[in-house]
Amino acid sequence: MNPAVFADALLNQIKHTHYGDHPPELYDPIRYIMDLGGKRLRPLMTLLATYLFTDEWQKALKPAVAVEVFHNFTLMHDDIMDQAPLRRGQPTVHEKWNHNIAILSGDVMLVNAYELLLDVETPILKQVLARFNRTAAEVCEGQQLDLNFETRDDVTEAEYIEMIKLKTSVLLGFALELGGLIACAVDSSVAHLREGGINIGIGFQLKDDLLDVYGDPIKFGKQVGGDIIANKKTFMLIEALEKADGPIKTELLGWLNRTEFDKAEKVEAVTRIYDTLGIRQIAETRINQYFACGFANFEQVVAEPARKALLIDFATQLVQRES
Amino acid sequence: MNPAVFADALLNQIKHTHYGDHPPELYDPIRYIMDLGGKRLRPLMTLLATYLFTDEWQKALKPAVAVEVFHNFTLMHDDIMDQAPLRRGQPTVHEKWNHNIAILSGDVMLVNAYELLLDVETPILKQVLARFNRTAAEVCEGQQLDLNFETRDDVTEAEYIEMIKLKTSVLLGFALELGGLIACAVDSSVAHLREGGINIGIGFQLKDDLLDVYGDPIKFGKQVGGDIIANKKTFMLIEALEKADGPIKTELLGWLNRTEFDKAEKVEAVTRIYDTLGIRQIAETRINQYFACGFANFEQVVAEPARKALLIDFATQLVQRES
Repeated sequence: MNPAVFADALLNQIKHTHYGDHPPELYDPIRYIMDLGGKRLRPLMTLLATYLFTDEWQKALKPAVAVEVFHNFTLMHDDIMDQAPLRRGQPTVHEKWNHNIAILSGDVMLVNAYELLLDVETPILKQVLARFNRTAAEVCEGQQLDLNFETRDDVTEAEYIEMIKLKTSVLLGFALELGGLIACAVDSSVAHLREGGINIGIGFQLKDDLLDVYGDPIKFGKQVGGDIIANKKTFMLIEALEKADGPIKTELLGWLNRTEFDKAEKVEAVTRIYDTLGIRQIAETRINQYFACGFANFEQVVAEPARKALLIDFATQLVQRES
Repeated sequence: MNPAVFADALLNQIKHTHYGDHPPELYDPIRYIMDLGGKRLRPLMTLLATYLFTDEWQKALKPAVAVEVFHNFTLMHDDIMDQAPLRRGQPTVHEKWNHNIAILSGDVMLVNAYELLLDVETPILKQVLARFNRTAAEVCEGQQLDLNFETRDDVTEAEYIEMIKLKTSVLLGFALELGGLIACAVDSSVAHLREGGINIGIGFQLKDDLLDVYGDPIKFGKQVGGDIIANKKTFMLIEALEKADGPIKTELLGWLNRTEFDKAEKVEAVTRIYDTLGIRQIAETRINQYFACGFANFEQVVAEPARKALLIDFATQLVQRES
């Protein structure tokens, strides 16, 4: 099976998804954010997980879109909370329309996600929804923790990992779990898929933090150092705040507290502090640990090797990404 | 059966509902808004509808709470959009905490509503959720229409009725429908309950608009004329804008456009315009029509007369309310 078959079928399914019509102010923003694109990682993971156990992977198409719609609902509401002007280089919904429309369109997107999930077969519906409810609540919990961390300078590594696990990784775990449930895989394989998705997800987010500092400016796509400029509480900064003391700590806090600065100078200075403290190595070690755990989880899933190779290849691309 | 039994069981169920714990910023606002009270009309309607057909009305308790949680989720988000400082005389969630927390707590409340609905028995789960999804989307559509109407001066009566049907009445319809579905009532009775709930709901909202102008200040509880002071696009104002012409139209528009005015003077003047145009009679006629339709719908429901009397009595209280 060529993996492009899954991507094509998924994009076609997204293109033909109907969200609603009237009033247009409510439904246009849903079409807008869904059309902004993105890598569609989560729904592809659902399709790959279904195909591990059955040829009938197409019955996972609508539920896979549910996961993507839910993900974009969280982006629409998070962008309000973060006052983000741009999403994938285009104006965010609250900028293009207004705050109220972004709140209300997001609400109806969440309802749309539930409606798409209703497409799973009746015997698994209750279990799928119970798992989705738990996941959705955890994603909200992660976002709230992220908001709480903004005003704290003493966030520990463990707290940070817990936050990104909730905010980002549990949805990757659910995307894989959902595929397993749709394919009626045995419970242990479903659980390993979920755990694997969570571990890969944590590694994925930590790699995001690493690439912001040490990414190749040509390959990265975004501005290298964007998190440093914005004082974003990433793994790198949290680790540096934990490790630094003496004059280095003073210098780091100085850069965090300065309101007027040359951006390039700040990025260079903070990167030098990270170098001195060995943050890059710490981050790379952690990332490799989580990715290794994820692959070990996938090892335990009982499925045909050729099919498992598709999932492993997909996860490997996530691991090796440079952007 | 004493109707207080339903209310007691419901309040007890609400009191023992668990929404989540960590982080507290996410879950405290849910407990706060649910504890503000209110008449609990919707979940009581679910219990009464279940009891029409079965003694096992207690199995509707958790789904009934789902309806109340959903209703309060819409209040939490509507209060942000309306910039409302108070809800039931207490600070709104976005005032007591902040906007971001009100958005995110509301999101997780919607997830909580779905989780409570999972308590219905498996054979009806898909149908209940499909109907709930449609209802939830319609409530959002109604809120968006309401927001759109704020900046329009040419809203017709038909458009206004459609808006309040979506924003308010379909949820009353669903509350009754849900009870019928849980009790495994025949399809026709479930449909009549739903239609009856919608019609009573429209009459109920129109009565709200009427009482704002012509309510007894002692019985009404809120300030009489509050909608007039705020230029709120109620049935009364929309009807008056449709009916008025010549100097009366000029006077009405004058009051709408004035930014500085004596509140009592404006309420008195606009009420006099409504008197002249016969808006009170038009409103009372419409209200009676919708209530009569609702009771005719309930007539068609096949159930034991003594049980139906409980629902009819409940609806009659809604009809005759003075506050």
